[in-house]
Amino acid sequence: MNRFGTNFSISIFGESHGPAVGVVIDGIPAGIELSENDFTDDILRRSPSLKGTTSRKEKDIPKIISGVFNSRTTGAPLTILFENEETKPSDYEQIKNIPRPGHADFTAYNKYNGFNDYRGGGHFSGRLTLPLVAAGVIAKKMINPMEISASISEIGGMTEYEQLIDQCAASGDSLGGTIKCAARNIPVGLGEPFFNSVESLIAHLVFSIPGVKGIEFGSGFKTAKMKGSQVNDIISDISGKTATNHAGGINGGITNGNMITFNVAFKPASSISINQKSIDLTTGHATELSVSGRHDLCFVLRTPVIVEAVTAIVLADLLSVQKETKQYH
Amino acid sequence: MNRFGTNFSISIFGESHGPAVGVVIDGIPAGIELSENDFTDDILRRSPSLKGTTSRKEKDIPKIISGVFNSRTTGAPLTILFENEETKPSDYEQIKNIPRPGHADFTAYNKYNGFNDYRGGGHFSGRLTLPLVAAGVIAKKMINPMEISASISEIGGMTEYEQLIDQCAASGDSLGGTIKCAARNIPVGLGEPFFNSVESLIAHLVFSIPGVKGIEFGSGFKTAKMKGSQVNDIISDISGKTATNHAGGINGGITNGNMITFNVAFKPASSISINQKSIDLTTGHATELSVSGRHDLCFVLRTPVIVEAVTAIVLADLLSVQKETKQYH
Amino acid sequence: MNRFGTNFSISIFGESHGPAVGVVIDGIPAGIELSENDFTDDILRRSPSLKGTTSRKEKDIPKIISGVFNSRTTGAPLTILFENEETKPSDYEQIKNIPRPGHADFTAYNKYNGFNDYRGGGHFSGRLTLPLVAAGVIAKKMINPMEISASISEIGGMTEYEQLIDQCAASGDSLGGTIKCAARNIPVGLGEPFFNSVESLIAHLVFSIPGVKGIEFGSGFKTAKMKGSQVNDIISDISGKTATNHAGGINGGITNGNMITFNVAFKPASSISINQKSIDLTTGHATELSVSGRHDLCFVLRTPVIVEAVTAIVLADLLSVQKETKQYH
Amino acid sequence: MNRFGTNFSISIFGESHGPAVGVVIDGIPAGIELSENDFTDDILRRSPSLKGTTSRKEKDIPKIISGVFNSRTTGAPLTILFENEETKPSDYEQIKNIPRPGHADFTAYNKYNGFNDYRGGGHFSGRLTLPLVAAGVIAKKMINPMEISASISEIGGMTEYEQLIDQCAASGDSLGGTIKCAARNIPVGLGEPFFNSVESLIAHLVFSIPGVKGIEFGSGFKTAKMKGSQVNDIISDISGKTATNHAGGINGGITNGNMITFNVAFKPASSISINQKSIDLTTGHATELSVSGRHDLCFVLRTPVIVEAVTAIVLADLLSVQKETKQYH
Repeated sequence: MNRFGTNFSISIFGESHGPAVGVVIDGIPAGIELSENDFTDDILRRSPSLKGTTSRKEKDIPKIISGVFNSRTTGAPLTILFENEETKPSDYEQIKNIPRPGHADFTAYNKYNGFNDYRGGGHFSGRLTLPLVAAGVIAKKMINPMEISASISEIGGMTEYEQLIDQCAASGDSLGGTIKCAARNIPVGLGEPFFNSVESLIAHLVFSIPGVKGIEFGSGFKTAKMKGSQVNDIISDISGKTATNHAGGINGGITNGNMITFNVAFKPASSISINQKSIDLTTGHATELSVSGRHDLCFVLRTPVIVEAVTAIVLADLLSVQKETKQYH
Repeated sequence: MNRFGTNFSISIFGESHGPAVGVVIDGIPAGIELSENDFTDDILRRSPSLKGTTSRKEKDIPKIISGVFNSRTTGAPLTILFENEETKPSDYEQIKNIPRPGHADFTAYNKYNGFNDYRGGGHFSGRLTLPLVAAGVIAKKMINPMEISASISEIGGMTEYEQLIDQCAASGDSLGGTIKCAARNIPVGLGEPFFNSVESLIAHLVFSIPGVKGIEFGSGFKTAKMKGSQVNDIISDISGKTATNHAGGINGGITNGNMITFNVAFKPASSISINQKSIDLTTGHATELSVSGRHDLCFVLRTPVIVEAVTAIVLADLLSVQKETKQYH
Repeated sequence: MNRFGTNFSISIFGESHGPAVGVVIDGIPAGIELSENDFTDDILRRSPSLKGTTSRKEKDIPKIISGVFNSRTTGAPLTILFENEETKPSDYEQIKNIPRPGHADFTAYNKYNGFNDYRGGGHFSGRLTLPLVAAGVIAKKMINPMEISASISEIGGMTEYEQLIDQCAASGDSLGGTIKCAARNIPVGLGEPFFNSVESLIAHLVFSIPGVKGIEFGSGFKTAKMKGSQVNDIISDISGKTATNHAGGINGGITNGNMITFNVAFKPASSISINQKSIDLTTGHATELSVSGRHDLCFVLRTPVIVEAVTAIVLADLLSVQKETKQYH
Repeated sequence: MNRFGTNFSISIFGESHGPAVGVVIDGIPAGIELSENDFTDDILRRSPSLKGTTSRKEKDIPKIISGVFNSRTTGAPLTILFENEETKPSDYEQIKNIPRPGHADFTAYNKYNGFNDYRGGGHFSGRLTLPLVAAGVIAKKMINPMEISASISEIGGMTEYEQLIDQCAASGDSLGGTIKCAARNIPVGLGEPFFNSVESLIAHLVFSIPGVKGIEFGSGFKTAKMKGSQVNDIISDISGKTATNHAGGINGGITNGNMITFNVAFKPASSISINQKSIDLTTGHATELSVSGRHDLCFVLRTPVIVEAVTAIVLADLLSVQKETKQYH
């Protein structure tokens, strides 16, 4: 189902070449100042303004349809629409029956018996990350003074990757990369043991971002090669601060007051203009295709703000379920 | 909350040194043959029979309290209890106020204002994975002919690790490791775009297992260093079979008919008998502790069956929500 | 939270005098034929075309924003917007701080600390039943051949109520009424014991309709005065058909194959032009108000299609969770 | 699914003649004093000690399996078991294939393809209301100082019903009745507009109690015969107190600070010793049966505490989701 969250929850909708994409957000407290300008910075960070990103240029102007009155949230569901203006559905007629390798074309065709909107990936499009970013803007306000910061670690395995992108653009290929994310000013006690561990919830939502193939918290995969005496973070004072942070700020699924840290692996974009083999779904015959149209050769450049958004969404939900138990003492 | 799943759902409960641990499972179809013997093999795979695992030897006999009649499931909630018999709560009095580094002691104490059952980690204990394994046994029956197989890839960074465990036992330290998991005979079309992607759901539940710090699907973190032309799996026939499987069997969050594959990183056990620094929560003073008691120096040896169980639980839930759409054509 | 349903779920949003009201619907199977014309009849049944209903005349044209492609549902979330065009927010400035008796003005003001959109009841407006009706249109398609039919039983305690409405209009007062609803062609086995009984789910959603104060299934409150020998419906053949239907088609929370029948009580509209006492929330002083603006003196005339819609939504959800168990025999 | 609640949630399980019935309760704050004695009074109010109630006498001793440590709740899931000791499954062999009129025998048989535990109604038994009452005891502690009080209004249509019960016992028939319930000391602002209205949630859970056929809030069905000028409750001070309470303490789905009041209709017990017609499910032939075994001729006598319990469960959940918005001003 296209919904995430318990007390703070989001539902995203829309297709790449339909009238609009958008989000309904439930569980926002009343009284938070909010205007359409608040979205500008984060939307800009996701926009394809950089070399290596798509030539589709949408205005990405958020229209608030509900849940705001006199520039403050009302406590009712808040809906934001982004109209699609730069649609070119004709770009996609050629690939209607030829699934692009690495894309959701084949799985969507089969899951929905051929009724899916195949234009630009339809509902599977990366364009659906735009309402995620918008929801993240609100979540970031809710969790203040918690702060989240994500950035690129590597692209194509390199930390200095400008030249690599140029080469890749020339060859019609695409590049993957890794993102690191840190959340600061985290209170002790967010999260639940087992099923709603902080790692579980962040991983759940991070893997909702198209192209993510891996996540690790703290020292992650490295800890599997280490000994307990090396990995255990020593608590140095009663606030829970630790000298090292191999745990990534989480013990037993619950925040320990240190930074939450994690890394995310993005695969390269599936759309490349190099010729690839595929099959025709109507005939079963082998065929070839080269993906033209407008797409990102290195969409990972646009993803740090998306990773921040989903992290903020998880933290906002966790914050709103945190129970005040002291009244029972 | 201690519950996972939509149409097939589980609630686990219990504490390491309380009367019992157990699980309530909802959404099991009526008519599945089930007896207490069906649990034997998987429970044995989780049991601490191997070198490097805890000396606490529980009988781990499942008692079915509800939901089975005449050796078949009834469709009503199915409850399984495992009584705790080998409890030694006195082992834990010493650490009542001294959080063990790397454990949930500190976070649990703060989240629950000191009312948590601290004995053996209480509800945070790895013993809660026993009811997970039991739920997995039932889920595996539900998803037949899908099959799941997990095994150890490395311990302490090595594929031949027997000697390493001996050394570690001698030094009182502990070891982490990685597990690989594959699910076969997967139909096309399980999972949802975005929030209920197959990766999202499996990652959610895998991170519920104590000690997990990372997960990657298919070629995972490696894909971040690769090009699209290398990562895209070419579809070779109309069933969706691909020659390579960098995607780990999932495109756009939805199964593509190939094997689901993923790797999981487990950190080393936090309990080690080497002296470590900590603080006393009642005084705030620095102190030291050496964790005695019974524990695993290499609990990763016991985890493959747990990883299989949570994967089966996710697939059983996904299978039960898969809609039959053809009636509308 | 503003969401209902498990596998077929709806989220409604919007305010009476905001830009639009709408709904996101999740869990619609792919391939159902759907155009904006399909909504016409049910929307007309809800529209204020009758004597005794509001003079606010909205066009109520559904705009499908997502989830439909080539006139069929795609399986992705389906979003429908209804723009508000006939807004007159100035009508409500007078009552900004004076809660109208019987309305949600007082509770909304307190729950949302005064940040609620008070114009026309804001999110609490009966206008939000328009997206409910739209969702009902789709649900009715999904549950075919099940059929739902609701109609007015009484208004103001009378079955012939035309004259009563005229009198009430003259006096500036309002009228309540009762609706009866029947659902036919119901398969045996929908619903769950206890928490998801069919009565529980229908009652849940019927009480979401503004103005509902009671519901009873089958012979309802009358059964409380009867004996078991009178109430028990005798099963007359193996299909489950019963001669009487005191149970309203439900035993143990589960449909028995007979008609589902229930009655719903609607209170009279709270908005009346007769002078009433209230208080000023800013000063705490007693005051009086007469509700002018545009409103229904007998909104119950418009409710049968809303009751049908919510019943269809419940049945669509129940149908989609019904498990096929025969494969396990 | 056998679960109810968002932040405070319950899962009930068990069968009438299985080993035990019980409940897992999630979302209890840590630190609430709790011992097995706390359950005594409410369990006694549900017990069949009165004339007109079943001769099955269970000890009904709660066994706390998890979630309590040192006589206080820990914040972890709390599980309570009630062992079944007085089972006489042989009583039910005669009716294995002959559905008792008015019971869930027919619907359960069909829903679960004959795999249901038919003994004493299995999971559909009124015995499952015992764990509901136990969960209610904890919920009542959580919502303090809110207080809930339910009592019998009428049995068989009479307020003085002792003689009626005697007559009915002599004739082998059964009696229905109505319960009235009031909740006091209710804060303003619990509940949500539309889907999670207080009426929706209370009705949802009240209809989970076996035998309920109707519910009405405040003046309920009477309001359908009244005018707005009669039904509107005038707010007399800034706390929201109203002179009348036709609304039953709820406006727009949200508590207004006055008493929550509602009435519940229970049908007569289906089990009567008078001969009734039915059919044999294996042959389809008409047959007759007289229900012997142990059962209640007037189970409504035992239900006030059950109605209180489910109301407390709803209020505890609503209280735990109530958002504190003032920090955003």
